[in-house]
Amino acid sequence: MNAPHAGPLAAEVGSSLSAHERSDARALRGAIRAGRHHDHTVGLAPGRVQGNLVVLPQALAGDFMRFCQRNPKPCPLLAVTEPGDAIARELGEDVDLRTDVPRYRVWVDGVLDGEVDDLRTLWRDDWVGFVLGCSFSFEQALLDDGIPLRHVAQGRNVAMYRTSIPTAPAGRFAGPLVVSMRPMTPANAIRAVQVTSRFPSVHGAPVHFGDPAAIGIADLSRPDYGDAVDILPGEVPVFWACGVTPQAALLAARPEICVTHAPGCMLVTDRLNTELAAF
Amino acid sequence: MNAPHAGPLAAEVGSSLSAHERSDARALRGAIRAGRHHDHTVGLAPGRVQGNLVVLPQALAGDFMRFCQRNPKPCPLLAVTEPGDAIARELGEDVDLRTDVPRYRVWVDGVLDGEVDDLRTLWRDDWVGFVLGCSFSFEQALLDDGIPLRHVAQGRNVAMYRTSIPTAPAGRFAGPLVVSMRPMTPANAIRAVQVTSRFPSVHGAPVHFGDPAAIGIADLSRPDYGDAVDILPGEVPVFWACGVTPQAALLAARPEICVTHAPGCMLVTDRLNTELAAF
Repeated sequence: MNAPHAGPLAAEVGSSLSAHERSDARALRGAIRAGRHHDHTVGLAPGRVQGNLVVLPQALAGDFMRFCQRNPKPCPLLAVTEPGDAIARELGEDVDLRTDVPRYRVWVDGVLDGEVDDLRTLWRDDWVGFVLGCSFSFEQALLDDGIPLRHVAQGRNVAMYRTSIPTAPAGRFAGPLVVSMRPMTPANAIRAVQVTSRFPSVHGAPVHFGDPAAIGIADLSRPDYGDAVDILPGEVPVFWACGVTPQAALLAARPEICVTHAPGCMLVTDRLNTELAAF
Repeated sequence: MNAPHAGPLAAEVGSSLSAHERSDARALRGAIRAGRHHDHTVGLAPGRVQGNLVVLPQALAGDFMRFCQRNPKPCPLLAVTEPGDAIARELGEDVDLRTDVPRYRVWVDGVLDGEVDDLRTLWRDDWVGFVLGCSFSFEQALLDDGIPLRHVAQGRNVAMYRTSIPTAPAGRFAGPLVVSMRPMTPANAIRAVQVTSRFPSVHGAPVHFGDPAAIGIADLSRPDYGDAVDILPGEVPVFWACGVTPQAALLAARPEICVTHAPGCMLVTDRLNTELAAF
């Protein structure tokens, strides 16, 4: 399972990228395509939307798309490509799903088969690419609003948990909602509801706060994915729908073959985070 | 082409509905299912979301769903059913797409073949139902906010126009954006931007205001669909993406068979208009 990346302000990426490539989305994609960056994308091309990637054969694409449509909070669809077409036109200039992700994971029957830097030789005429919004965008908005994020301050991955909340199934896809958790003071939690509500296409408002048991989480100190973070006195845990939800549903469906981004190695688009704001 | 219904406060519907059936969404669907209401649904079950219906064979459903995903302002998807399954579980208790719309239109190769009150005999195992948000929801929010709507006051259908703005194509589906127009004072137009931005799943914020020629509309007095309305001195035309867009793209694609609701005869759901508000 993909353990997501650290928060958007995590440590600098060690690579041969130029300053221009680190800040410009298209130049960054060019460097990735040229094979000069195979690492995570945290903090690169600031302000630009980064997305989760799922590539599936067309025979399963309809089911997966309905799964996303029915569960928009954990599965916010930013783009779906034409069958066989690897270019995600809505996401920017010359965004090629075969080459522009630093590292891919290939899954056979839901089991990790290996990692590759490039899908050009694997790509099939019946493949459909899905790009889903990720929490980078709303985390940046929270930080810009002065709301501190513990996992960023602690240099950890965000803590994620399987819940007892079912998703709405579609075809072969089903499973529990996975949430990410960020501890906050009540005042910051209230502001965070306001800020993240502006971003329905990157998970939107929280789904829960407070008692973890109410959503089937037994122990906050033992996340199912990512790292535990400290919760200070006076803070409450605040839970957001998480992009691991569709990945977990995808792998549980055991497709003959599918591809995802490797953890933290996201597709960097030309879209601005601020463009995603509903208001 | 479907000429939409009048605004949400249009004249009362003449039918045999009881007061309870006129106000309760589930009871209304029961009356429609029992064949006691074949007319439009304007003003019925106040506060509940009403939706446009499109039913397509599965072979085209993926293309149509991608078309909607790429053009969310004119094509806001509220629900997509499993292939062959006519029940739209996300939309309420026992919502059956075969029986719960007062009148359906059946299209063969993009040409109107006839109207039926019921799809039970026509329904096929490979049919997929799409329910799309309609402007009823945001018009009610505008009226509730004290913003008058000219077409409602004049008892007309809203004026709609084909524009020079292309939609993003998907598979066989393509065509121009169709917009609805509501004349407003600048102050009301500004407030209307705020109010409708809260409703991204029912067309959201306007796409244009002012000069019609800027979006390829030659003459506001000659709408392509619906009725012209008066524009008073000091008012500007404000344009919203319109649900006729996907219907026009659908029929232009000439599917072997498809079904839509008849004009104004919408699917009445249990969802509250206010639930659709992003904020």
